Amino acid sequence: MSRYDDAIAFARKNRERSLQSLTELLRIPSVSTLPEHIPDMQRAAEWLVQRLQALGFDGARILPTARHPVVYAEWMKAGPSAQTILCYGHYDVQPTDPIGLWRTDPFDPVVEGDNLYARGASDMKGQVMAHLSAVEAILHTGDLPVNLKIMLEGEEEIGSPSLPAFIQQNQALLKSDFCLNGDSGILAADTPALTLALRGLAYFEITVQGPSTDMHSGGFGGAVDNPALVLCQVIAGMRDAQGVIQLPGFYDAVRPLSARDRQEMAKLPTDEAWWLAQTGAPQLAGEAGFSSTERASARPTLDVNGLLSGFTGEGSKTVLPAKAMAKVSMRLVPDQDPQAIRASLETYLRQHMPPTVTWGIIEHASCRPSIIDMDSAPVAAAARALQKVWGKAPLYARTGGSVPVVGHIKELLGVDSMMLGFGLPDDNLHAPNEKQHVPTFHNGVETYVRFYEEIAR
Amino acid sequence: MSRYDDAIAFARKNRERSLQSLTELLRIPSVSTLPEHIPDMQRAAEWLVQRLQALGFDGARILPTARHPVVYAEWMKAGPSAQTILCYGHYDVQPTDPIGLWRTDPFDPVVEGDNLYARGASDMKGQVMAHLSAVEAILHTGDLPVNLKIMLEGEEEIGSPSLPAFIQQNQALLKSDFCLNGDSGILAADTPALTLALRGLAYFEITVQGPSTDMHSGGFGGAVDNPALVLCQVIAGMRDAQGVIQLPGFYDAVRPLSARDRQEMAKLPTDEAWWLAQTGAPQLAGEAGFSSTERASARPTLDVNGLLSGFTGEGSKTVLPAKAMAKVSMRLVPDQDPQAIRASLETYLRQHMPPTVTWGIIEHASCRPSIIDMDSAPVAAAARALQKVWGKAPLYARTGGSVPVVGHIKELLGVDSMMLGFGLPDDNLHAPNEKQHVPTFHNGVETYVRFYEEIAR
Repeated sequence: MSRYDDAIAFARKNRERSLQSLTELLRIPSVSTLPEHIPDMQRAAEWLVQRLQALGFDGARILPTARHPVVYAEWMKAGPSAQTILCYGHYDVQPTDPIGLWRTDPFDPVVEGDNLYARGASDMKGQVMAHLSAVEAILHTGDLPVNLKIMLEGEEEIGSPSLPAFIQQNQALLKSDFCLNGDSGILAADTPALTLALRGLAYFEITVQGPSTDMHSGGFGGAVDNPALVLCQVIAGMRDAQGVIQLPGFYDAVRPLSARDRQEMAKLPTDEAWWLAQTGAPQLAGEAGFSSTERASARPTLDVNGLLSGFTGEGSKTVLPAKAMAKVSMRLVPDQDPQAIRASLETYLRQHMPPTVTWGIIEHASCRPSIIDMDSAPVAAAARALQKVWGKAPLYARTGGSVPVVGHIKELLGVDSMMLGFGLPDDNLHAPNEKQHVPTFHNGVETYVRFYEEIAR
Repeated sequence: MSRYDDAIAFARKNRERSLQSLTELLRIPSVSTLPEHIPDMQRAAEWLVQRLQALGFDGARILPTARHPVVYAEWMKAGPSAQTILCYGHYDVQPTDPIGLWRTDPFDPVVEGDNLYARGASDMKGQVMAHLSAVEAILHTGDLPVNLKIMLEGEEEIGSPSLPAFIQQNQALLKSDFCLNGDSGILAADTPALTLALRGLAYFEITVQGPSTDMHSGGFGGAVDNPALVLCQVIAGMRDAQGVIQLPGFYDAVRPLSARDRQEMAKLPTDEAWWLAQTGAPQLAGEAGFSSTERASARPTLDVNGLLSGFTGEGSKTVLPAKAMAKVSMRLVPDQDPQAIRASLETYLRQHMPPTVTWGIIEHASCRPSIIDMDSAPVAAAARALQKVWGKAPLYARTGGSVPVVGHIKELLGVDSMMLGFGLPDDNLHAPNEKQHVPTFHNGVETYVRFYEEIAR
């Protein structure tokens, strides 16, 4: 029996206490977007500081930012020769509306069957507390095998506006070998998985102006260009019939998928029938030569997110609109750079916008893609930990969405993020009746214990 | 001196009385779209019946429709061998909002300089009363040389919803050789003109649905088609780089412009600089091989009138929209048929919509184009009348917009409409401070007198 087996035994004996601790944190309505919850944000931060101090962390404290504070603590007793892990989490939660659709009070956690219902139960107080329970269990048997820096932000649900500046101002404090980010999940309660890559994002608004004001389509139609039609033509050319994006140089930095990448993705349970059922579309579509799972997670895309021009009410108005607008965004994969993509879009627009209109673009969001090597030490340790706890090897997944903090940490601290969290697809994140699957929470605690065992091997 | 010279002399002597009569009618706020003005609509109709009776018309009466009544009267003493003219007009007016931009009370007519300011002064109580003043002047000297049927509707400003049924139910009553429609204008106070053709209209809403609900563009972008992008691609193909509309058979029924048509249009003062200044566009655009005036009045067009899909607020939302909508309309020229154009659009959509979406179309408006022969008797008579009053030959124009009643009259009564009205481009139709140019009003009265002189030749 290793000391980690002792830690597992401790964790199992203390399951009720771990859940109790999570329940205490869930009772604090730390909704970051609502000003009336500012005192609750402070309470949640203070609660975490106390909890970290109780666990034996040093320097547990609340560090202010422009808006909601960051909770920081560290355990550095493994010494300078040991690895240092930066553990990222967030203690803020989404608002509860539509509140009428909740079956229980979102801030009065209730266990029903295998599930604990509360706002933040899965996203991500449950993940943070599973991690802290694992650390407690290990420290009960001795020291951690690595140095640990805990950074818990309070603004993830509002887009982490203060985090880049905070990281930049605290680069020395946050220096580490890699980041462990619990803000993720597995594919099902019996299907362990590791998320190796996240897509980036480049989001723009394109505006086109033709005549100086709205004109009568009878009196002027035919003599002057129609900005809505021009916008349609320019957007139409951005993607060809094979689903290939036509912005110049768009694919230049795309890291090709290896045979192994594709083999791993082929093992995922998200087959074509799954994608069809999930979307309800009459037929799937996408880039020729790739599976739907690859298209939606490992290949870059271009989507129109919004269109607006002219008259959009009921019935007819014979207007020749002065303006047209499209929101267009690209999901990016390693090693595409949002700023290079912006340049590519601008080049395309310069090439394709006719001189009969004026146009402009606004950048609304920008996030780098990220990836961690399947053969890296953190991934290998996490895979062995999952294998031990679940009794089967994890699947390797990519996430089609974007987690800006991973990009910020890569850019500002120079380290990769290992995503290791235990949310489930049906946890109702950001929705009414959010829940944490309790057996998965306990498996999560054990996986974090085993991760520390494996990472120090 | 002919008796028509006597009629002109009478009209000149009675100018103040003619204006007084117009002013009386303008004081009645016959706004057809507002329910609170229903009594005013009735008052305006009664006022016109009394006026027509006073002029010597027979059977002047108010004929009910589903909404606002039609005023009808006839003068049939020219006998069965003489021509019968159906005179069309409307006694309803547009609402006055934004009322704050009016410098005077819209229903308390005021003469300032050469202009009479009031709602409906030009559109079209001024035209109706100019015509009746001319009839009065002729009847003062004897009989009219033709039979005259007067039909004044109360719904033109709300799209004439009851008129087609009214015409259909009264085909015998309205039987005539041609229609004289005063709802038009000339190019400037010193530039007489005749409108020979009006464009038709076919107005549709095209809807596209991809996934069954809005999806997250991160999680699903790439695996499922984007209905907004599909809509852009389908619309983009509707017009080529030369401005030629690509719907199959779209131009099949288009009557080619003759050399004479084009010569007459080239005489119009609307040169390229005029179109550029009017639209404020950075550059003109349109179908290759045609002037802007031809493009905007004598050639068919396709315009996007509205676009809507996904997120259109400020900032970004990473939505993959379930639906996208476009309002698309075509202006039609003789001899295009709106129903054939609908079929052409449907064929195009069937050919171009991919199987990755579902789609539909809704028809919002349909109106036939119309044209009257430059060498026809009514046009020749009107041209001679304008020449006599203005001392110069009229220009021949086409109107890019659509006048549905002209199509209805052609379709249901089988007769062409001769547009003969005296509105000016700066009369502020449908806008605050609508006005009638008083000298043009008096010239209009004289032109109608001369028209009757010439039509009977």
